Amino acid sequence: MTEFISPGTRFFALPAPFPMKRGGELTGARLAFETWGQLSEAGDNAVLILTGLSPSAHAASHADNPDPGWWEAMIGPGKPIDTDRWFVICPNSLGSCKGSTGPASARAEGEAPYRLDFPPLSIEDGARAAALLVRSLGIGQLACVIGCSMGGMSALALLALHPGIARTHINVSGAARALPFSIAIRSLQREAIRLDPRWNGGDYDDEHYPDSGMRIARKLGVVTYRSSLEWDGRFGRVRLDSEQRPDDPFGFEFQVESYLEGHAQRFIRQFDPNCYLYLSRSMDWFDIGDCCGTDTASALAGIRLERCLAIGVSTDILFPLQQQEEIAEGLARGGADSRFVPLDSPQGHDAFLVDIENFGGAIGSFLGELAR
Amino acid sequence: MTEFISPGTRFFALPAPFPMKRGGELTGARLAFETWGQLSEAGDNAVLILTGLSPSAHAASHADNPDPGWWEAMIGPGKPIDTDRWFVICPNSLGSCKGSTGPASARAEGEAPYRLDFPPLSIEDGARAAALLVRSLGIGQLACVIGCSMGGMSALALLALHPGIARTHINVSGAARALPFSIAIRSLQREAIRLDPRWNGGDYDDEHYPDSGMRIARKLGVVTYRSSLEWDGRFGRVRLDSEQRPDDPFGFEFQVESYLEGHAQRFIRQFDPNCYLYLSRSMDWFDIGDCCGTDTASALAGIRLERCLAIGVSTDILFPLQQQEEIAEGLARGGADSRFVPLDSPQGHDAFLVDIENFGGAIGSFLGELAR
Repeated sequence: MTEFISPGTRFFALPAPFPMKRGGELTGARLAFETWGQLSEAGDNAVLILTGLSPSAHAASHADNPDPGWWEAMIGPGKPIDTDRWFVICPNSLGSCKGSTGPASARAEGEAPYRLDFPPLSIEDGARAAALLVRSLGIGQLACVIGCSMGGMSALALLALHPGIARTHINVSGAARALPFSIAIRSLQREAIRLDPRWNGGDYDDEHYPDSGMRIARKLGVVTYRSSLEWDGRFGRVRLDSEQRPDDPFGFEFQVESYLEGHAQRFIRQFDPNCYLYLSRSMDWFDIGDCCGTDTASALAGIRLERCLAIGVSTDILFPLQQQEEIAEGLARGGADSRFVPLDSPQGHDAFLVDIENFGGAIGSFLGELAR
Repeated sequence: MTEFISPGTRFFALPAPFPMKRGGELTGARLAFETWGQLSEAGDNAVLILTGLSPSAHAASHADNPDPGWWEAMIGPGKPIDTDRWFVICPNSLGSCKGSTGPASARAEGEAPYRLDFPPLSIEDGARAAALLVRSLGIGQLACVIGCSMGGMSALALLALHPGIARTHINVSGAARALPFSIAIRSLQREAIRLDPRWNGGDYDDEHYPDSGMRIARKLGVVTYRSSLEWDGRFGRVRLDSEQRPDDPFGFEFQVESYLEGHAQRFIRQFDPNCYLYLSRSMDWFDIGDCCGTDTASALAGIRLERCLAIGVSTDILFPLQQQEEIAEGLARGGADSRFVPLDSPQGHDAFLVDIENFGGAIGSFLGELAR
């Protein structure tokens, strides 16, 4: 696999051996990360951002890489996550393929990729790697850890496993545990990849690659990342022009089908299928209760924070709003000044990437109050 | 393909040629159907039931076939659709593989199946075939046409294309047109089948059969037929016992995964993949507006009925409740005494098959008032 690493990406070498929660260990592993802004002398202005399944560390543009990042509208000077004030760090998740070590990485220079010999990956492994990165940057306590989607799980694991690592927390469309609807969707995505004969038990290359399985997995992802409400307004029943339609009796005919195909085309060869399988499964396994040897509510109540914000949208079918409410209530029981912000954004789970007005407003004022 | 026809199934030979809406025609085509109860001398007690994508004509048990039907709790003596009072008719849809003519049927005795040479299938074709069946039984006017899911589309087409064919109508979790979320889901199901190399452009047999594609399509169906709310209570995060788990690092681990697998196993070889493609596409194409050469609302307002009931559930993501509300409002504008019954059943789109208390209550009292 080709690695996709953007200019300005830095690397943090994880201590070796790096033991994994469910057994096995990594040697020579690393996290890719990017930063924005300056760490204050007191080291008290650091904000860590933990990502969803697929993003890289390139959350926003910077001097070394002017390309827009995946949260470009949110991070920068004068933006809701204001890099004039905050030192912002975003790692690529452990197990991913955008510079951090994962199943697509070579075990050692010149060697073959791990593929399915990569040890089982848990959300907690990624959280522990992120904690080591934070410490390596000389940060005693984060001003805030922000986690989006899967990153919301990672942030809770980080907070539970490393007490005192952050003063505050923003959980964006996250969850304290995976529930059966999202488990079913992810299981089906993994099955589509595994059923593709070219997946070949994880042993594929650029010539023989599970494009079909990845196409189905990605489209199913996009369907569950957005909402029917948004699509009614955006696509309705509009047809493709006849010259855009494939000459195939069951080929695409509606705009919504071509939209999904575009998303799939942009993703299939940009994300490693084995990494996808590992990260996807790590979400199914996650329950902050298991992480702390107790139930979900008690685990949340055991986390100590000054303040927190849990935010999400009513149209999210993958990480439904009740899950952000559960986080806000659970963290309040632990003593945090806890805020739950339910939004009516029509864009579904992906709203935090799109509805910057509402998400940016809430995140910006939370961080603004913190700075005062 | 083996045909799956239950004892007591009757057949109606469609007139030849039977022209299809989008071109082409059928010769020697038939509809399989079953009936319950007795047609009154006045011929005024007939209730036609039009089905969703996959059911057969065997909606309920009867003397010739005591096996439970797909709506067993709803149809029978003393049940909400009371066969002591009503003469109930249920055809297998045109284009299906449960006795009616479809892509899996031989063109003529001893000949090969149509496969993809079957002409493009529209909801309107099935509705016209059902109207001919009704006439052939000597019924001047149906007391009621009931349509469930896809059958709700078929019933609206029947009413629009055959004015006066029914006094009343019950639309159960149906829609007046396909919207982009459900189009996206169905497109993805069809794509999973078409991407399976063993689908082979529609030319498969029992030895080389697109099991993988059908497995993904069916599981995706089940995910969208139910609701996350129901699954939270039903499965939660319960794991399979270790002896139930396959020896596979990405194999099933949660009960919800095994539930989906069970559904897939029971379906894959019981429904013909080409028939699935044709019926699925016919739903995407459907808009009662197109059917009448106008817009959706005007087409509904053009239908004349004495009474109607549109019923659905808030947890349905495939045929969302607003679509049943649109039907009730549209038919009211046409002069019908129109009722909209929104339910909070947790079971999603499939609730009409499961929540007999609520669906049976509403349907039973609608029919009861009609009989008085």
